[in-house]
Amino acid sequence: MAKEITSKSENYSQWYNDIVKKAGLAEHSAVRGCMVIKPYGFAIWEKMQSQLDSMFKATGHVNAYFPLFIPKSFLSKEADHVDGFATECAVVTHYRLKNGEEGQGLIVDPEARLEEELIVRPTSETIIWNTYRDWINSYRDLPVMINQWANVVRWEMRTRLFLRTAEFLWQEGHTAHATRQEAIDEAVQMQKVYADFAEEYMAMPVIKGIKTANERFAGAVDTYTIEALMQDGKALQAGTSHFLGQNFAKAFDVKYLNENNEEMHVWATSWGVSTRLIGGLIMTHSDDEGLVLPPKLAPIQVVIVPIPKPKEAIMTVANDIKARLESKGISVKIDDDSRKRPGFKFAEYEMKGVPVRLGIGMRDLEKDLVEVARRDTKEKNQVPLADIDSHIPQLLQDIQENLFQKAIQFRSDHSSKVDTWEDFIDALDNKGGFVSAHWDGTTETEIAIKNQSKATIRCIPQDEDNEKGSCILTGKPSARRVLFARAY
Amino acid sequence: MAKEITSKSENYSQWYNDIVKKAGLAEHSAVRGCMVIKPYGFAIWEKMQSQLDSMFKATGHVNAYFPLFIPKSFLSKEADHVDGFATECAVVTHYRLKNGEEGQGLIVDPEARLEEELIVRPTSETIIWNTYRDWINSYRDLPVMINQWANVVRWEMRTRLFLRTAEFLWQEGHTAHATRQEAIDEAVQMQKVYADFAEEYMAMPVIKGIKTANERFAGAVDTYTIEALMQDGKALQAGTSHFLGQNFAKAFDVKYLNENNEEMHVWATSWGVSTRLIGGLIMTHSDDEGLVLPPKLAPIQVVIVPIPKPKEAIMTVANDIKARLESKGISVKIDDDSRKRPGFKFAEYEMKGVPVRLGIGMRDLEKDLVEVARRDTKEKNQVPLADIDSHIPQLLQDIQENLFQKAIQFRSDHSSKVDTWEDFIDALDNKGGFVSAHWDGTTETEIAIKNQSKATIRCIPQDEDNEKGSCILTGKPSARRVLFARAY
Repeated sequence: MAKEITSKSENYSQWYNDIVKKAGLAEHSAVRGCMVIKPYGFAIWEKMQSQLDSMFKATGHVNAYFPLFIPKSFLSKEADHVDGFATECAVVTHYRLKNGEEGQGLIVDPEARLEEELIVRPTSETIIWNTYRDWINSYRDLPVMINQWANVVRWEMRTRLFLRTAEFLWQEGHTAHATRQEAIDEAVQMQKVYADFAEEYMAMPVIKGIKTANERFAGAVDTYTIEALMQDGKALQAGTSHFLGQNFAKAFDVKYLNENNEEMHVWATSWGVSTRLIGGLIMTHSDDEGLVLPPKLAPIQVVIVPIPKPKEAIMTVANDIKARLESKGISVKIDDDSRKRPGFKFAEYEMKGVPVRLGIGMRDLEKDLVEVARRDTKEKNQVPLADIDSHIPQLLQDIQENLFQKAIQFRSDHSSKVDTWEDFIDALDNKGGFVSAHWDGTTETEIAIKNQSKATIRCIPQDEDNEKGSCILTGKPSARRVLFARAY
Repeated sequence: MAKEITSKSENYSQWYNDIVKKAGLAEHSAVRGCMVIKPYGFAIWEKMQSQLDSMFKATGHVNAYFPLFIPKSFLSKEADHVDGFATECAVVTHYRLKNGEEGQGLIVDPEARLEEELIVRPTSETIIWNTYRDWINSYRDLPVMINQWANVVRWEMRTRLFLRTAEFLWQEGHTAHATRQEAIDEAVQMQKVYADFAEEYMAMPVIKGIKTANERFAGAVDTYTIEALMQDGKALQAGTSHFLGQNFAKAFDVKYLNENNEEMHVWATSWGVSTRLIGGLIMTHSDDEGLVLPPKLAPIQVVIVPIPKPKEAIMTVANDIKARLESKGISVKIDDDSRKRPGFKFAEYEMKGVPVRLGIGMRDLEKDLVEVARRDTKEKNQVPLADIDSHIPQLLQDIQENLFQKAIQFRSDHSSKVDTWEDFIDALDNKGGFVSAHWDGTTETEIAIKNQSKATIRCIPQDEDNEKGSCILTGKPSARRVLFARAY
């Protein structure tokens, strides 16, 4: 089975597609650009959702649900926002089909044309801020801290499963605050929540930074981002949190009376992560045998493969181990399908990235041993049956930590600091990854660099010192280094 | 605050709307027919989702996600199905907006017309069965047991919050089986899951039955339903589970090779419940003071209202009780907002249907007592502080059970068995509720009865004996009684 996937070095893009397909994560649907998220892929999303949702609630947010459709006129109200989304949106124009005459089959009923076209939400700032106008009157109504789990549609022409699809699943937080500083603090807090989730659960190291004007969200004053590095040396924007200033409050006339009875516009944030994270997860850890999953997000953490005979004796041990591990909160699957050989199953669960595999056979059992194989390093050990309860939880922790350290090492091996254009191009072409360099701060130069190198400014890192220098392209003064990469 | 809602007897429909609004559950949005589910309403939905999801998983189902859009041609493939949905669907015809010339503002770009129109899913049988064709080849691939949590759109002209909206949230299960009997068993099993959920969690008694041909789902061979009774004597279809026969397998050419290597069409079911359940929950239990929630679905099970002074001593006790109850898995909120008086808070939490309220004041505390008020009966008791830990869990159980028994009693008081047309109309007009009567079994008579009485056949109950008789309208022979009601 493992033989069926293209190796990473041979064709990275095909390797990715092969894993998505062979591990049963997702597939293209009959609808252009839309994917089907298959049960195993969706189970990973459920684990992500559940963890993120509890982190959102722990930081004071509640969930709600706003309409799928946005009136066309709403989209136009915030000037930058409409420019960002109008050219790639699904437009509902009619509300009825009918049988055409003369055997045309089902046609759109021309008499059922909407007075105003509706846009399938590409993001919900406009419909939500139109709603907040009625909810917010006084400082007592603030802050409003709402999150929504939803599907959104952006009509992308070139799509890739999980990474870029016309429809995707995400969460979008939309908060309203009395002061500028409180909104900025919220945007930064949610960026931190995303970074913590990426590193602690996905085992995917990220760099926290601020987007340049050219790369920020349409309608934002500042976009805070987390940027990860994939194994082909390309960067992935994994989550963004926006300080929206008063842009949407002004566009939708959302004001509140402060404690001095003065009317003020409300300050806003929005923040989101999507099923794109699954793409990032796959590309951070997987190898030529298939998917590799960090234990904290693996739908099945331990798979038990019983060697077929003698069935009863082996199954008794397997069921006992399963019960013991489940009582510790570990998810366990026993695969006793008698139509498949153990070797076939080994390859199958490697492909699916199950972190730990236990092989239970009579020869080992006679010595009170169980074979424990870890997916990340492919090491195998004989572990005494009596030690399984303590060994497995520790092993899952070790795997989680090992994946994270390996990813940090990869990023460190693929990060450069350069001061000349030649070194910049050399780093991008020959090493890939993040390149820290000076830039003169203008959008003009940023675009020129992109056109000449295919690298974009991923972010202005938040946690580095300001070191002055000269722009690698123009030689003009630069206030600090920024981080470039070729990106998804 | 309680004074602000219309009484049930004065205007039932306005009473419902008032509760939805004043309890902060939902509101109409700027988009015709679409609702905003507010945080408190959504929290109830989250409780429902979480419980249903675990029941689906316990019966062997997994979640997945299929596209929002359905190509127009797919909808036409199953003849009954298209008749059921074509006249009320949102149609996407274009994928881009642009700035119009001469100051028209944003317009639909006529050059971005889709080759084939896309329908926003009203239900997903077609796109899912088109997908299953590639997933199912052999009996080894069966059964497929998938559920999806999603939004759907049906372009309803007359909408009511939760009960009937253009967009709503739901789950839709879609299963594929090797045999007819297995599919029927699955459809019946899921009807039972819905009934168990309604009765055990919503405390809403339901009748299980089969829909007549005229009332069944478009594309189903048989529709299994659960029917509840609201306090205005109208029935509510609360959930349906469909045995789809081979209709969709034939329409989408989904076949499998059986163990004898013969090619067979696959057998199907689908089943769903939606945010409509929240409407049913509200109308089953609430009263003229507002919402009444069964403890098992209440986002806040216990609210503690501290009498303001002396703050510190009271808050110490409040926090201690909260911690003790939370350790038993009970959700507790302390409302120590000093800007609102206790009396105001009492009315507010009555409106929101919080099952138990604890009032903590110094006068009681000196006697080591706490005031415990239950929302359902409005009884108040002084309970010794030391007994709170054992008293509250028991009280929550009692409330859950009391609400269920009360609803059963109401249904029993509003159920009739009649044998003549006069008694039939009399029961509907003067008692409301379910009316058990004989019907000759034809669609023609069913429609005639509906036109003359506004009552529909809610179901052919599954758990009653077959008693022969004569149709109340035509006098023709009837094989068994069926259940009529005016309905939502």
